[in-house]
Amino acid sequence: MSLATLDTTQHPYLPAASATLFKAKATKALSFEQIAEHIGRNEVAAAAIFYGQAKASPEDIEKLSTLLDIPHDLLNEQLSGFPDRGRSVEMPPKEPLIYRLYEIVQNYGYAYKAVLNEKFGDGIMSAISFSTKVEKETDKDGNNWAIITLRGKWLPFSRF
Amino acid sequence: MSLATLDTTQHPYLPAASATLFKAKATKALSFEQIAEHIGRNEVAAAAIFYGQAKASPEDIEKLSTLLDIPHDLLNEQLSGFPDRGRSVEMPPKEPLIYRLYEIVQNYGYAYKAVLNEKFGDGIMSAISFSTKVEKETDKDGNNWAIITLRGKWLPFSRF
Amino acid sequence: MSLATLDTTQHPYLPAASATLFKAKATKALSFEQIAEHIGRNEVAAAAIFYGQAKASPEDIEKLSTLLDIPHDLLNEQLSGFPDRGRSVEMPPKEPLIYRLYEIVQNYGYAYKAVLNEKFGDGIMSAISFSTKVEKETDKDGNNWAIITLRGKWLPFSRF
Amino acid sequence: MSLATLDTTQHPYLPAASATLFKAKATKALSFEQIAEHIGRNEVAAAAIFYGQAKASPEDIEKLSTLLDIPHDLLNEQLSGFPDRGRSVEMPPKEPLIYRLYEIVQNYGYAYKAVLNEKFGDGIMSAISFSTKVEKETDKDGNNWAIITLRGKWLPFSRF
Amino acid sequence: MSLATLDTTQHPYLPAASATLFKAKATKALSFEQIAEHIGRNEVAAAAIFYGQAKASPEDIEKLSTLLDIPHDLLNEQLSGFPDRGRSVEMPPKEPLIYRLYEIVQNYGYAYKAVLNEKFGDGIMSAISFSTKVEKETDKDGNNWAIITLRGKWLPFSRF
Amino acid sequence: MSLATLDTTQHPYLPAASATLFKAKATKALSFEQIAEHIGRNEVAAAAIFYGQAKASPEDIEKLSTLLDIPHDLLNEQLSGFPDRGRSVEMPPKEPLIYRLYEIVQNYGYAYKAVLNEKFGDGIMSAISFSTKVEKETDKDGNNWAIITLRGKWLPFSRF
Amino acid sequence: MSLATLDTTQHPYLPAASATLFKAKATKALSFEQIAEHIGRNEVAAAAIFYGQAKASPEDIEKLSTLLDIPHDLLNEQLSGFPDRGRSVEMPPKEPLIYRLYEIVQNYGYAYKAVLNEKFGDGIMSAISFSTKVEKETDKDGNNWAIITLRGKWLPFSRF
Amino acid sequence: MSLATLDTTQHPYLPAASATLFKAKATKALSFEQIAEHIGRNEVAAAAIFYGQAKASPEDIEKLSTLLDIPHDLLNEQLSGFPDRGRSVEMPPKEPLIYRLYEIVQNYGYAYKAVLNEKFGDGIMSAISFSTKVEKETDKDGNNWAIITLRGKWLPFSRF
Amino acid sequence: MSLATLDTTQHPYLPAASATLFKAKATKALSFEQIAEHIGRNEVAAAAIFYGQAKASPEDIEKLSTLLDIPHDLLNEQLSGFPDRGRSVEMPPKEPLIYRLYEIVQNYGYAYKAVLNEKFGDGIMSAISFSTKVEKETDKDGNNWAIITLRGKWLPFSRF
Amino acid sequence: MSLATLDTTQHPYLPAASATLFKAKATKALSFEQIAEHIGRNEVAAAAIFYGQAKASPEDIEKLSTLLDIPHDLLNEQLSGFPDRGRSVEMPPKEPLIYRLYEIVQNYGYAYKAVLNEKFGDGIMSAISFSTKVEKETDKDGNNWAIITLRGKWLPFSRF
Repeated sequence: MSLATLDTTQHPYLPAASATLFKAKATKALSFEQIAEHIGRNEVAAAAIFYGQAKASPEDIEKLSTLLDIPHDLLNEQLSGFPDRGRSVEMPPKEPLIYRLYEIVQNYGYAYKAVLNEKFGDGIMSAISFSTKVEKETDKDGNNWAIITLRGKWLPFSRF
Repeated sequence: MSLATLDTTQHPYLPAASATLFKAKATKALSFEQIAEHIGRNEVAAAAIFYGQAKASPEDIEKLSTLLDIPHDLLNEQLSGFPDRGRSVEMPPKEPLIYRLYEIVQNYGYAYKAVLNEKFGDGIMSAISFSTKVEKETDKDGNNWAIITLRGKWLPFSRF
Repeated sequence: MSLATLDTTQHPYLPAASATLFKAKATKALSFEQIAEHIGRNEVAAAAIFYGQAKASPEDIEKLSTLLDIPHDLLNEQLSGFPDRGRSVEMPPKEPLIYRLYEIVQNYGYAYKAVLNEKFGDGIMSAISFSTKVEKETDKDGNNWAIITLRGKWLPFSRF
Repeated sequence: MSLATLDTTQHPYLPAASATLFKAKATKALSFEQIAEHIGRNEVAAAAIFYGQAKASPEDIEKLSTLLDIPHDLLNEQLSGFPDRGRSVEMPPKEPLIYRLYEIVQNYGYAYKAVLNEKFGDGIMSAISFSTKVEKETDKDGNNWAIITLRGKWLPFSRF
Repeated sequence: MSLATLDTTQHPYLPAASATLFKAKATKALSFEQIAEHIGRNEVAAAAIFYGQAKASPEDIEKLSTLLDIPHDLLNEQLSGFPDRGRSVEMPPKEPLIYRLYEIVQNYGYAYKAVLNEKFGDGIMSAISFSTKVEKETDKDGNNWAIITLRGKWLPFSRF
Repeated sequence: MSLATLDTTQHPYLPAASATLFKAKATKALSFEQIAEHIGRNEVAAAAIFYGQAKASPEDIEKLSTLLDIPHDLLNEQLSGFPDRGRSVEMPPKEPLIYRLYEIVQNYGYAYKAVLNEKFGDGIMSAISFSTKVEKETDKDGNNWAIITLRGKWLPFSRF
Repeated sequence: MSLATLDTTQHPYLPAASATLFKAKATKALSFEQIAEHIGRNEVAAAAIFYGQAKASPEDIEKLSTLLDIPHDLLNEQLSGFPDRGRSVEMPPKEPLIYRLYEIVQNYGYAYKAVLNEKFGDGIMSAISFSTKVEKETDKDGNNWAIITLRGKWLPFSRF
Repeated sequence: MSLATLDTTQHPYLPAASATLFKAKATKALSFEQIAEHIGRNEVAAAAIFYGQAKASPEDIEKLSTLLDIPHDLLNEQLSGFPDRGRSVEMPPKEPLIYRLYEIVQNYGYAYKAVLNEKFGDGIMSAISFSTKVEKETDKDGNNWAIITLRGKWLPFSRF
Repeated sequence: MSLATLDTTQHPYLPAASATLFKAKATKALSFEQIAEHIGRNEVAAAAIFYGQAKASPEDIEKLSTLLDIPHDLLNEQLSGFPDRGRSVEMPPKEPLIYRLYEIVQNYGYAYKAVLNEKFGDGIMSAISFSTKVEKETDKDGNNWAIITLRGKWLPFSRF
Repeated sequence: MSLATLDTTQHPYLPAASATLFKAKATKALSFEQIAEHIGRNEVAAAAIFYGQAKASPEDIEKLSTLLDIPHDLLNEQLSGFPDRGRSVEMPPKEPLIYRLYEIVQNYGYAYKAVLNEKFGDGIMSAISFSTKVEKETDKDGNNWAIITLRGKWLPFSRF
C-alpha cells in the first residue's frame, strides 16, 4: 500500500505544521488510519489536521508528537493556533478526485436544497457542527465502492 | 410544511421541463418525497430530474405525467433528451445551504483524497456510477441533523 | 423623504415577488420602517423579504397582503417557497454603499477572526442563527452615524 | 485558552511587521484583549495593526515595543509607514469564519442599502470614519452569541 | 456636433429612466452642457443622472421634465428612488476612453497614495463628498487637451 | 509627518529599483515633495518613478543618486531601462484609497465619455501625452480637500 | 463566395444599427469590399462601422443609406451617436480566427515592446491615431497568406 | 538611446535563459536590431527568443553565444529545449503599450474576421506559419508612426 | 434509443439555425449518424453544424433541407454565413461529459506537448486542418469503450 | 532532434520529482520514446509521470532509477506518493500547442456529447479508466499529421 505524502513545492500555502507532520508520517510509514486510531479521532479529521484544516487539541498534539517522534515544543508551536481553513484546495479543484466531489455539489446542489428544505424547513446543514467519514464497500462482483457520509446539525434561519 | 418551488426569473438557464414540472408540483401540492415514492426513485434523484440534472426514463415520464397531470406528449418532448448537466448552480454557490456543501469540499478535499488514496489506491470515487441520499435524524436534545450519503464506484487510474 | 424602490431592469434575477412587493410599496408610499412595524419584524428583515433574501411566514404574507393591497393568492404563490438567497448582490459589489461593507470584511476579516477565536475558541459566528439591525445616531456636531449590529450564535467546530 | 498566531507561509503578502509582532505575541503569550488594553485601543484595532490593516501611532509603537520586547527601532521602521490595506483577506474569503461575514453582505447588502437610504437619504456609511467592536453574550441556555458592531459616519453624496 | 445617445441594447442593466431621458434628449437635440445649465448642475453630474449614477432632486426632476417634455409623473416614478450605482461600466472597461481613466488608476494608484498620505496623513479622498468637472483647453499649436478635476474631502481613518 | 515607505514583502513584483529607492528615501527621511523639487518634476511623477511607473531620464538618475546617496552605477543599471508599467496595482484595487479612484471611474465612466464626446468629438483623452498633479485645499471649516487634476491630449479617432 | 452575416442571437450586445446594416447587406448581397469602395473607406473600417466599433460620418450614413436602401432617418438615428467600443469581442476570444490575433499579442507582446522602445523610446503605438488594412497574397505554391498591417502614431510619455 | 532590459523580479516566470541573455545584452550594450542582424533573423524574433517565445536553432545559439560572450554550454542547456510559450504577458495586459495591441483585437476582432472570411473563405490566419515585423516611419510633420505587419498562412477549415 | 435534442432556454447564444435544425431533427426522429450519412460527412461534423461550429456547404444545406423538410430559403439564410465558433461551451465546462475532455487537456497537456515536440519538432497540431471521429468498442466483458480520434496537420513554427 | 526539457522557473508548482527526472533525462539525452520503451509504458504516460500527472509503480521507479542514474531512494521518496494531478497546465492554456487541444473541446464539446449520447446513452467517457496515444503520419505530399487517440470506458449514469 502506498501512503499519502506531501510535496511542499505543490502546496506552498499550507501551514508549517503540514510539512513537519507529513515528513514524520513518511519516515514512520504510518497511514492515516493508524494515526487516527492512535489519537482517537476519525481518519478524515486526522488528515484534516495534517492539511491545516482542523484544530488539534493539546492531547492530539501530545499524541502526535509521541507517535511521530516530533519534538513536542516544535509541534505545539506549529499546531496550537487556530486553523486558517480553506487554503488547501484551489477552486474549482483541478485534482480529479476532488473535482468529482465539487461536481456533485454543482449537479445536485439545488436537488439537495429542495429535499432538505422540504424535510427540515428554511435553514442549512451546518459544516461546523459537522462530522464526516469515509467507508469502503466491496460488492459481490469485486467492485469497490467509496461511501462518504456528511452529518451536520440543521440550523433554521432565525426570524428577526 | 412549505414545498420547494421554482421561480423561473431566478433560474433562466434551466430546461423548459423544469418550469413545467415545478408548476404542476405546486398545483398538486406534492413534496419530492411523495413524487419519489410514486416513481420509485430516491427523492434527490426526483428533485434532480426537476432541475434537469438527471435523465428520466420513459417509465419515469409516464408516471410523472400521470401523477402531475401533465400531457404526456409535452413532458416527453421536454424530458426525453439527454440532460445538459451543471447549469443549475453557479459556482462558487451564493446560496447559503449549497455553499456549505461547497465549503466541505474546499476544506476537506485533500483530507478525503489522502484517506481514499490510502484505502483504495490511485483513483477516484465516481460521480457517475454514483448514488446519494438525504436522511433526517433527531438527537435526544431535539436537535435535527441532516445526513447526506455519497456512494460512488471506485475507479482506479488505468496503467498505459 | 425618498423611498427605496426597485428598478427591475437592474435586478433581472430577483424573484417575481420582488417586483410585486416593491410596486405595491411605491403605490402605498410606505417605508420599510412602517412595513416592518406592521408585520412585527425588524426593518432589515422586512427589506430582506422584499429582495427575496428571507422567508416570509404565512402570517407575514397575510399582513403584507393586507397592508400593501396585494391579492393574497398571488403573494402566497410568489412568497411561500424557500428563498434562493444570495442572488441580489453581485460580488465584488459595485454599489458604493454595499462596497463599504465588503471593504470592512476585506480589511478587518482576520482581525475579527483573531479576536473571536481568542474570545470563543475555534468556531464561527453563525449567519443563520443570526439577526441584525440598523440604527441612527446624531452626535453633538449634528453628524449622523449609522450603526449596524450583527448578532450570531457561536458555533464551535465539532471534534470528530 | 488558545491564542491567535500567524503562520507566515500562509500569509506571504502581509507586511514584515506582522511576522515581528505575532512572533513576540506568541513568546509573551498575550491575547489581543491584553494588548489592546495596554495600548488603549479596541482589540479589533489592535489585531488590525498586527495584520497591517491599521496605522499605529508613535505612542502605539512605543507601547507595543515595551510590552512585546521588540527593539523600538525595528518596530518603528516596520510600522511607521502607511498601511497598504486590503491584502490580508483574499476575496471571496475561503476561511469559514470570514466567509460568514462576507455572506451577510451578500445576502443583506441591498436590504441594508434600502433601510439606510430611507433613514439617512442618498449616501453611504463610511468605512474610514468608522469603528467596530466585538462582544460576547451568553444566553440563559448557555449558548454563546457573538455581537459585532459597525459604526460609521454617514456621508451624503455631494450635489454638484 | 454629434450628441451622446444611448443604445439600450448595449446597456441592458441601466435603469428605466436612462432610456426615457436619452430618448427625450435625442428628440430635443440637447447637449449635456445645455441640460446642465438648465438644471443648475455640472454637466458630468447631469450625465451621471442620465446613466443612473446620481440622485436627482425633486427640483431636478421638475426641470428635466419641463426641458425634455417628459410627463412629470413618469419621470418622478422612474427617478425618485435611490440610484443603484456602479452598473453602467463593466470592469475592466472595454471602452477605450473609459479604459484610459482606468489605466491612470492602474499606473499611478500607488503614486497618488504615497503623495496623498504624505500630504494628508492616513486616510482617503472621498468619492462621496466629491465633485468633478471636465474642461477643454486648446494650446497654441491648436491641440486640444481635456482636463478632468477630481475634488474629494479628505477622510482620516478613525482611531479606535 | 509620516513618510511613505515600501514593504517589499507586499510588493514582490515591483522592479529592483523600487527597493533601492524607497530604502534610501527612508534613510534620508525625505518626502516626495522634497525629492520632486530636487529633480524638477511633479511629485506624482517622482513617486511614479519609485514605483517603476515612469521613466527616469539620465539627469533624473544623476540627481536621485546624489540626493539619496545611491551609487550612480547601481541606480543607472536599475533605472535606465523602459518601465514595465501597470504591475503595482492589482485590479480591482483592494487598497481603500486607490479603490475610491477606481470607483470614480466605475460610477462616472460613461458620464465622462458622454461629456467629453460632446465637447471634443469621437476620441479619447490620452493617458500617455498626459500629466497629473495633487493639491491640498483647506476650507473655512478646517476640512481638508484633495484635488487631483488629470490633463491629457485629446486624440481623435483616425478616419481610415 | 459566402458573405459575412450577423446572427443577432449570438451578438445581443451589439448596437441596433448592427442588425439593420447586416440585414440590408444580406439582402443586397454586398461584400465589405464593395461597401468600403462605395463609402470611400477601408474595408476593415467599413466592417467596424457594422459592428459598432467605428464612427460613421454624416456622409458615410448618407452613402450607406443609399447603397443599402435603408431609410436615412432610421440609419441616422441609429448611427449618429458615439460608438460604445469594445463590446463585440468577449475576451479571451473564443472564436478561433480572433483568438489567433490574441495569441500573437500574448506571445509577442513583450518582444514588440522591446523593439518599439529601442526604436522610438518610451511611449506607445496609438490605437486611436491608427489605421489598419488586410491584404491577400498567394505564393508560388498556391498557398494564400493574410497580411494585416497596423499603423499607429507613436506617442511618447509626457515628462511631468 | 536606451536599451530594453529585463528586471527579473518583475518576470518571475520567464525561463532561465531570459535572465542570462538580457544580462549579457546589457553588458554588451547591444540593441535587438544589432543582435537580429548578427543572427540573421528579424528583430521581433530575436526579442522573442530573449523572452522565451521563439525557438533558437543550434546556429542561433552559437552566434548568440559568441556575440554576447555567454559560455556555449550554458546557453545551449538553457535554450535548446522547446519554448513554453505564452507566459510572458499576463492577460489582459496591464502594460500600456501591449494593452493597445490587445485593444485593437478587442475592437476590430470581428471586423477582421468578416473581411478575412469574405476574402479567403472559412478559416483562420495562422499564428504559427507566421512572421511579423516592426517598422518606423516619420511623416512630413515630424511625427513618428509605428507599423506592425502580421503575415500568416491562411488555413481553411477541413471538411470532414 | 434516445436522440440528442436542444433546449434553447439552456443555449441562448447558439445561432438561429440551431433551433431550426434541432427542432426538425426531433420531428423527423433522426440520429446524427443518419444525418451524417445523408450529407456524406462525419457525424461529429454533422453535430457541429447543428451547434453552429462548422460551416455547411451549399450542398450540405440542400441535403439538410430535403432530409429535414426545412424550407431551403430559411435554412440557407440561417446557415450560409461563416460560423462564429466557440460559443456553445462555457469554459470550464460544467457538463460532466465535456468536463472529462477538458480534464484530459488539463492533466496531459504538457505530456502531449513533450511527446509531440520530440516527434515533430517545434510546432502545433492544427485544430483547423483537422478532423475527428468517435467510435464505439465493446470488450469481451461487455464493457463499452469510447474512442475519440483527433487528427491534425502538424504546423512547424516559421523561422523569421 | 531536440529533446523536451523542463525549466523549473516556469513550472514552480510541479512536484520535486519533475526537476529530478527532467535533469537526468537531459544529462542522459533520452527521448520519451526511449524512456517509455524502457519502462514498458506508452510515451504519453511516461511524460505524464515526469510532469507529476501519473502514478509510477514500484517497478517504474526501479527502471527509471536505473535508466536515468538517479539514486533509487531519492526517486522512491519523490515518486511513491499519489499524484496531485492537474497542476501542470494553467487554464485556459497559454501555450499554443496545448491551447489547440483546449479549443477542440471548446468548439466540438457539445458535438461530441450529442454523438456519444446517441451511441451510448446517458453517461460519460471516463478520463480515469482511460488511455491515450500519439502517432505520426506523413501523407504523400510530405505533410506530417499528428493523431491523438483518446480511449475511455463508457460509464452510464446510475439510476437511483
